[in-house]
Amino acid sequence: MRNIALRIEYDGTGFAGSQLQANRRTVQGEIERAWEQLTQEQRRIYLAGRTDAGVHARGQAANVWTNTHHTPATIQRGLTAILPEDIAIRDAWEVPPDFHARHTAISREYRFLIDNGRVASPLLRHYALHVSRRLDIAAMDSALTVLLGTHDFAAFAGAGQEEPTVRTCYAASCQVHDLWGQPLIAIDIAANAFLRHMVRNIVGTLLLVGDNKRSVEDVAAILASRDRRKAGETVPAHGLYLMSVNYP
Amino acid sequence: MRNIALRIEYDGTGFAGSQLQANRRTVQGEIERAWEQLTQEQRRIYLAGRTDAGVHARGQAANVWTNTHHTPATIQRGLTAILPEDIAIRDAWEVPPDFHARHTAISREYRFLIDNGRVASPLLRHYALHVSRRLDIAAMDSALTVLLGTHDFAAFAGAGQEEPTVRTCYAASCQVHDLWGQPLIAIDIAANAFLRHMVRNIVGTLLLVGDNKRSVEDVAAILASRDRRKAGETVPAHGLYLMSVNYP
Repeated sequence: MRNIALRIEYDGTGFAGSQLQANRRTVQGEIERAWEQLTQEQRRIYLAGRTDAGVHARGQAANVWTNTHHTPATIQRGLTAILPEDIAIRDAWEVPPDFHARHTAISREYRFLIDNGRVASPLLRHYALHVSRRLDIAAMDSALTVLLGTHDFAAFAGAGQEEPTVRTCYAASCQVHDLWGQPLIAIDIAANAFLRHMVRNIVGTLLLVGDNKRSVEDVAAILASRDRRKAGETVPAHGLYLMSVNYP
Repeated sequence: MRNIALRIEYDGTGFAGSQLQANRRTVQGEIERAWEQLTQEQRRIYLAGRTDAGVHARGQAANVWTNTHHTPATIQRGLTAILPEDIAIRDAWEVPPDFHARHTAISREYRFLIDNGRVASPLLRHYALHVSRRLDIAAMDSALTVLLGTHDFAAFAGAGQEEPTVRTCYAASCQVHDLWGQPLIAIDIAANAFLRHMVRNIVGTLLLVGDNKRSVEDVAAILASRDRRKAGETVPAHGLYLMSVNYP
């Protein structure tokens, strides 16, 4: 049996999330349906990361065990042609039989976008969280360095997260870009794996730092506490992007 | 009577265009309705530029003659709060009684975005025209210089354009940006005023240059011919943005 990996982009606005759910429009559901149409096979598509309703992906990954004779190039083009316009397969390639998109992944990268203009940009309403207050970007960037390394991230875990909650954060930074005059803040975090709602809870905490209501030391204390109640709120999903999933 | 100018941003995806139309959702219609709700006055909103269905605006302008006592800041915030989330008033300010958003304008700037990735980005499907072929950007940029200065632009006029068709082009250029690995081409054109479909017809011609089917000299000949049939196709509206309208 062959094993095919997929790199997937989607606009999360119209999905109830990535994971299959009965009677809901999901990324997995759409791809499994397109797969069947292309190959006449009913197969399970294994996604690397679970994304919530409204969360976007530039580089979600998946794999599928298959007997199809289609080449990876035909699979990439064929699935993209069949899929609705808010999902595309950017790439398809052969992988060894034991490759599993989720279990084989060694790291993931997420980005969170904040529209920091005085007036919310209508063009970004589904693609960035609007915060009109001036934020202390330098303080936010410093606070992110606290996360680097291996820690118990329980303070940033969403409800229902299973143990263990130790993760290794490889990179975390915050930068301001100018999008036709609108300040756009990009918060980038890379880790071996992420807890449920982890990025959104980190961003909620970071906003307190940006408002100078919490210091960099406070963030270190929040992380060390492993107490979810000490961290900031879970920010809305629509500013979040799964940028890439990396393999050995 | 006071005269108030507005700077307006909108996502054109959900509109049948900017101009008022019976039983259609339009930018003007939404703003006139919001104005009445805020001020209890029924007023005409005069837009600087007419944009077609699907065309976006970062810097559309308008003016309204009014007896309201609201300050410009209250008008900006109040209208934005009332308006649906795909329109925002970025700014409001007092102007002299004879200011007319369209007639007083001395120049306009448009941008056209092309998603030039191999696979169309689902995140850009309403915001950039997808062209998967490699385009000769340097040739396109050179061809744009042909447009600079005062010319009869009849070759790029849409059907139903009234005479005269002479316009002055102040700036025209083409640049490639990288949006998370996806090449994004921005074509920027500034002129005193634009003919109907002018930017979309120029971009259609420019794509022929990008494909090396027309040379820079051919574009000069097309412009000189004043013959619409010699120019390229009208490209779809959803890559077009009215970026700004400028006043003395």
